[in-house]
Amino acid sequence: MKVGIINVTGYAGIELARILLHHGEAEIVAVTGRSDVGKHIGEVFPHLKSLNKKIEPEIAGSVDVVFSALPHKASAETCGPLLKDGVKVIDISADFRLTNVEEFEEWYDVQHPYPEYMSEAVYGLTELHRDEIKRSSLIANPGCYPTSAILGLAPAVKAGILEPGFIVDSKSGVSGAGRGMSLTTHFSEVNESVAAYSLDGHRHLPEITQELRRISDDGVCRVTFVPHLIPMTRGILSSCYAHLKPGSLSSNRGKSEALYDIYQEFYQGEPFVKLVKSPPATKHTMGNNDCILYPTIDERTDTLMVISCLDNLVKGAAGQAIQNLNVMYGLPETQGLESLALYP
Amino acid sequence: MKVGIINVTGYAGIELARILLHHGEAEIVAVTGRSDVGKHIGEVFPHLKSLNKKIEPEIAGSVDVVFSALPHKASAETCGPLLKDGVKVIDISADFRLTNVEEFEEWYDVQHPYPEYMSEAVYGLTELHRDEIKRSSLIANPGCYPTSAILGLAPAVKAGILEPGFIVDSKSGVSGAGRGMSLTTHFSEVNESVAAYSLDGHRHLPEITQELRRISDDGVCRVTFVPHLIPMTRGILSSCYAHLKPGSLSSNRGKSEALYDIYQEFYQGEPFVKLVKSPPATKHTMGNNDCILYPTIDERTDTLMVISCLDNLVKGAAGQAIQNLNVMYGLPETQGLESLALYP
Amino acid sequence: MKVGIINVTGYAGIELARILLHHGEAEIVAVTGRSDVGKHIGEVFPHLKSLNKKIEPEIAGSVDVVFSALPHKASAETCGPLLKDGVKVIDISADFRLTNVEEFEEWYDVQHPYPEYMSEAVYGLTELHRDEIKRSSLIANPGCYPTSAILGLAPAVKAGILEPGFIVDSKSGVSGAGRGMSLTTHFSEVNESVAAYSLDGHRHLPEITQELRRISDDGVCRVTFVPHLIPMTRGILSSCYAHLKPGSLSSNRGKSEALYDIYQEFYQGEPFVKLVKSPPATKHTMGNNDCILYPTIDERTDTLMVISCLDNLVKGAAGQAIQNLNVMYGLPETQGLESLALYP
Amino acid sequence: MKVGIINVTGYAGIELARILLHHGEAEIVAVTGRSDVGKHIGEVFPHLKSLNKKIEPEIAGSVDVVFSALPHKASAETCGPLLKDGVKVIDISADFRLTNVEEFEEWYDVQHPYPEYMSEAVYGLTELHRDEIKRSSLIANPGCYPTSAILGLAPAVKAGILEPGFIVDSKSGVSGAGRGMSLTTHFSEVNESVAAYSLDGHRHLPEITQELRRISDDGVCRVTFVPHLIPMTRGILSSCYAHLKPGSLSSNRGKSEALYDIYQEFYQGEPFVKLVKSPPATKHTMGNNDCILYPTIDERTDTLMVISCLDNLVKGAAGQAIQNLNVMYGLPETQGLESLALYP
Repeated sequence: MKVGIINVTGYAGIELARILLHHGEAEIVAVTGRSDVGKHIGEVFPHLKSLNKKIEPEIAGSVDVVFSALPHKASAETCGPLLKDGVKVIDISADFRLTNVEEFEEWYDVQHPYPEYMSEAVYGLTELHRDEIKRSSLIANPGCYPTSAILGLAPAVKAGILEPGFIVDSKSGVSGAGRGMSLTTHFSEVNESVAAYSLDGHRHLPEITQELRRISDDGVCRVTFVPHLIPMTRGILSSCYAHLKPGSLSSNRGKSEALYDIYQEFYQGEPFVKLVKSPPATKHTMGNNDCILYPTIDERTDTLMVISCLDNLVKGAAGQAIQNLNVMYGLPETQGLESLALYP
Repeated sequence: MKVGIINVTGYAGIELARILLHHGEAEIVAVTGRSDVGKHIGEVFPHLKSLNKKIEPEIAGSVDVVFSALPHKASAETCGPLLKDGVKVIDISADFRLTNVEEFEEWYDVQHPYPEYMSEAVYGLTELHRDEIKRSSLIANPGCYPTSAILGLAPAVKAGILEPGFIVDSKSGVSGAGRGMSLTTHFSEVNESVAAYSLDGHRHLPEITQELRRISDDGVCRVTFVPHLIPMTRGILSSCYAHLKPGSLSSNRGKSEALYDIYQEFYQGEPFVKLVKSPPATKHTMGNNDCILYPTIDERTDTLMVISCLDNLVKGAAGQAIQNLNVMYGLPETQGLESLALYP
Repeated sequence: MKVGIINVTGYAGIELARILLHHGEAEIVAVTGRSDVGKHIGEVFPHLKSLNKKIEPEIAGSVDVVFSALPHKASAETCGPLLKDGVKVIDISADFRLTNVEEFEEWYDVQHPYPEYMSEAVYGLTELHRDEIKRSSLIANPGCYPTSAILGLAPAVKAGILEPGFIVDSKSGVSGAGRGMSLTTHFSEVNESVAAYSLDGHRHLPEITQELRRISDDGVCRVTFVPHLIPMTRGILSSCYAHLKPGSLSSNRGKSEALYDIYQEFYQGEPFVKLVKSPPATKHTMGNNDCILYPTIDERTDTLMVISCLDNLVKGAAGQAIQNLNVMYGLPETQGLESLALYP
Repeated sequence: MKVGIINVTGYAGIELARILLHHGEAEIVAVTGRSDVGKHIGEVFPHLKSLNKKIEPEIAGSVDVVFSALPHKASAETCGPLLKDGVKVIDISADFRLTNVEEFEEWYDVQHPYPEYMSEAVYGLTELHRDEIKRSSLIANPGCYPTSAILGLAPAVKAGILEPGFIVDSKSGVSGAGRGMSLTTHFSEVNESVAAYSLDGHRHLPEITQELRRISDDGVCRVTFVPHLIPMTRGILSSCYAHLKPGSLSSNRGKSEALYDIYQEFYQGEPFVKLVKSPPATKHTMGNNDCILYPTIDERTDTLMVISCLDNLVKGAAGQAIQNLNVMYGLPETQGLESLALYP
């Protein structure tokens, strides 16, 4: 299949190129950029020299499917015409993630350029929407934080064992903020420091709530989400908390064991969700497409605690996008995504 | 006053020496170590050469007050005889923090060598126990995590506005794990990674609960505490969450403003607690004795969120110990602790 | 072919497992460890779970070739008997790198357990000794520093353009010091700091000198080698300096251009040596087997400067070992080593 | 004395403010900035809140002495008029460091706005020019790299024991690149990487050469200087190399000992130059004004090796500027600069 990468010069775009180059079934026929247009990609990113393509201003020529790694709005503006031309789109931006146009426009403070496609889009959290992804031409690839949070909470929400007020406390490496320059990505400001941000509402919150509500029996679900920036390049660890409904989880084998069973059943057969019985580290996901989950119960306070780890640029962006590509094209879901974590 | 530092070769001990050397009123007359005994301190720590002392196996000669930076149990064993001799003790270990001997012995899995002193000890969180510290000869200096968590939650707990199940999600630099060697302090294991630990119960939990219960009207208080290790040397950021009791906080001025007022009143005149109106970074406390607090409300879910930052080796250990020394001796509370954060 | 990994629990061993798992031609039939014997490898290294092997105390069963990632002496002791049994050995330790037994014993301060194999061993810097590697059963895989230094200087030494006193100033990530624990790998000691070490003679020096002398016309070559530890996990950058012989390099096209031509000719067709025309960063080699070289001339002082970058665990250890395996078995030299650098 | 800080919003300016606030003799009466003009300094830098000043567009009111932390050219443009008004100037920029106007204009590619002051300026490397600094009204504070390189080489150059081609290989933390934004200060680009830069000639080179030539008997001195960026915030370590002249250094006590004596004599009584007998780490200078030197000889090759460490923002910028202030005003040279390194 012929693949285009829109905005290859950002971190998600670079990662798409890295993985697709050795995918085996996908042929990268065109790459575009918002910067460095006209340069050979190897001049800008020496490690991608073997891709052997010039960075174009826009997708030219025939492609079957494009990945868009543009920011929101710009992404929809670019992908809309391609969709009309019958090109399949896997959009890494937020433009098609929310089902409700008004909610999108309020949170992102822009007018949506192609609202007519919002109902066609499938939220590309593969583990939850695999069947719809197979049949779709427009995938809204989830945000990095939401991927970790939703995968972390979904089984417990589905099981109906939680009181509705959830806390998601996420810690992210700096690459999540992109390749753009600002004081929040300045080495001397970020290094040897940790800070919370967006306490008045991060744009990834509505995705998390939307997806957890879909899963929940009663559709009630209140999420407090606080992201933190920590001094590392890659990785997200989300710590998810919720109080148990009184009487939840049979306790003769221990509540944590009962919880583990719920998670094991929910994720049975999933190639990229790994359940573990001791606290994981983001390092064990570096460069690969895994999401590692450690679900447990604080029995002193009857509180669910789930630690969820992933590489924000892989399972949180490019890797999941390629996982979705595989599903769309009926390929083995792990195609091109087999590489193990780079440790240490 | 003549001061001794017990176990100067650990990070808290080194930091005590650094600060006390320029304290102005304290004269360091003896330092002991568990390693490097017999060496000049400048051989081991070049930056402390001007202290000009040999590392002794134990405190010899006359001292008015000692700081103990030994691990638990070893600290009580060493300090017990000194207390009997009338020496004042500021103990940075956990040995005298809990009022209940059984609770201590259960959490720390040792027999307390001097339980008779537990009732005399004052929990040295200066902001909460200043008056008792003035009159005490034995200060149990708080843990680094508890200092950040208790200062973060105390005003709201006192105000009676919270439902009883609190979440404390803490992120710590690696120096909190001490100078001892293990895989959890190995650079290649810790760098470029984040992990939670002690989800089955960290030893700092009972301190947090004990102190918040003292403050709470009804003595009810359940805490879920999850510490995380992040790739930096110094600093702790604790994110504290609790659901508001229905109807709490008048909302005509906004709940966050009402909350801020509660915190401002609680910490009025405190030299080392700084309230801020935007999310702080640990970098702004590096090397100094401040605890920076950002209290706010998630109005979507009526959830209290407090971000609490400090330097784990200063306000979380050596600095607070010296703050307590100043209080005990009627000195200005900021004596020796004026230095500003090292930024960037 | 059936492959064994001796000491899979160190960083070079882990990396061998990671790469060999997806090699395509090699089947890992046994792994041994000095720690964690009896455990499943997935318990110790979650990312290697799919290897599905127990860690054994020693190689049992039939293997065609072993990689040894043991420390020096222990490695020869373990590999000697295997060599006698006709097993091929690729030794990542230093035991067979020096051709002169006395020199080895002086630098490493041990008695060599199998000196009779030293003359059979081939120094496994693939680019210099490819033909001998093809015919050999015992490969002495080069050290990480020597790989960067020798590849950086070889073309200029061969060309006879340098005065004989070379300076090699190397900067290494901490993983080069292994998974063992010491203050020099303690996060809080290493982070936010840089230091030189072994100024009185690092054990990698004699390898560098031996190999450069072999290349040099007159066999004269004096090397000053100073390694530095910098706060990162992976990567070595060696800055190599030497004064030009008067009159060297025709200057009508510029000395740097003339130098570049010498390097280009020397490394023509090499799959893993990449020449660049601007200063490279170690990040561009992270996780892959490349050595990136930037050769240039300081025309103010007629001084050669070569910047040489690689990943110390890949081209500096496990990757080069597998490159040698490929050469020994007549496989494509890049087999299993195609993956691109993980950037950022 | 009344002090102004020009451009307090850069890293050198922030550090000037931090140190001067507790200097004891200096009163900060005005601060200017190129950004954040009109804001209270505490809004921009919470840790400087107690300075209690607004950021002004330019120095207004009466000052005795100003520190300029502007970039080159802008600094001279701003300081020229102040000099005419009789204000003393300590300029942290490069504008007055070189004695030769043409050389300055060639290296910095600008026209000097006040060349007439170049001959009045004293190069403010306190240890070399203390007497002239006492009598001067215009101090050209040295660059961070030159401070480390010149202090590292001066005693050996003065002693006449070196062949003339020196190599200075420097490793710097990222704060040396300032608070401005670029890919070279972007966390995700710099973290977990090391790179050399400016191999075609860094602007700090002519300072180094100028000062070493002044010291050298015969004025002959050729320097190859290669700076490297490493993933830490503060600190410079310069490794300085030179071949010994044949027959240099009496060898009965060992050449390294003879060299140490030369350095000890040269720096006798210096409060901020610390000689050590084992390789130092930049961590031992963090936040203080020391330059730590480790001079030694590679006896295998008769090569001088000097490791020189300092904090680029203190001895490499603000601290040395305040050291010069102290000298100018006849204060104790260590006034305000007593604080010990922050370790770890």
